[in-house]
Amino acid sequence: MTPEIRPFAEPDWPAVWAIVQDVITAEETFPFDPAMPEPVARAVWVEPPPGLTVVAVVDGQVAGTAKMGTNRPGPGAHVSTASFMVAATARGRGVGTALCRFAVDWARRKGYAGMQFNAVVETNTSAVELYRREGFEVIGTVPRSFQHPVHGRVGLHVMYLEFDGP
Amino acid sequence: MTPEIRPFAEPDWPAVWAIVQDVITAEETFPFDPAMPEPVARAVWVEPPPGLTVVAVVDGQVAGTAKMGTNRPGPGAHVSTASFMVAATARGRGVGTALCRFAVDWARRKGYAGMQFNAVVETNTSAVELYRREGFEVIGTVPRSFQHPVHGRVGLHVMYLEFDGP
Repeated sequence: MTPEIRPFAEPDWPAVWAIVQDVITAEETFPFDPAMPEPVARAVWVEPPPGLTVVAVVDGQVAGTAKMGTNRPGPGAHVSTASFMVAATARGRGVGTALCRFAVDWARRKGYAGMQFNAVVETNTSAVELYRREGFEVIGTVPRSFQHPVHGRVGLHVMYLEFDGP
Repeated sequence: MTPEIRPFAEPDWPAVWAIVQDVITAEETFPFDPAMPEPVARAVWVEPPPGLTVVAVVDGQVAGTAKMGTNRPGPGAHVSTASFMVAATARGRGVGTALCRFAVDWARRKGYAGMQFNAVVETNTSAVELYRREGFEVIGTVPRSFQHPVHGRVGLHVMYLEFDGP
């Protein structure tokens, strides 16, 4: 069951919004406003070019989504970033890994020098372990900077994968 | 010569824009687009409430500026952030320190749990040392993530000051 990854298209929005809304209202994995209105979420999640938003399709259903682009402007613009969300019903089935690999391949092809994740919740161990398997390392952890509904204040990792080294 | 720190007001913009433009076109200390048009720079630098933008006044002149606010929304909203710029003609005279202390005091009074700097250029040693003196520590450094016009690709520090500890 390898997910098909393809660019986001207009008709995908209801399925993508369902995933985004589920993830942000849980408040367990993303430092996003849980009350973000749908149009704001759309503007945040659907990246205009040169960024890209994609969906992962499994059995004809949108099982996950990713966005990717430049992490910082100007003198920071050679580093990419990406975010991933997987539908609750599709977790543990390789969708996140497929999305992460797609994003890294995309960023390499675009000529970025690396990919940075700015705020990975340390208790989101399935994501942290996934990123480690793909070569990312924890650069540092800002302690108690994420208010988790179950675990209280937990750290946010900065993670980085440099594509070709110094 | 202690700078007076006061809220930004409309008539300050030409002086603030001169500082911002000088800093971003140098491309040595901020990962901002150096070609940022004036209205965009104004929107980026002048924080709407609940954030705040201030100026440091020395001898009746705007010698520096700072902006401060929330670092991330939702579950990250208990952490503040701030940015500081000092006029080239006013550097080395305590303006940056006065602005940093003002921002930290402001964030403590607002009830934030800490202050995070997301991207401090490692070769900007006067800033790094200033922040260390004020109690900030380097959480980690993303290697070669800032393209410096003189030093080439240098690291960006994530720095953090937790106000009251665990």
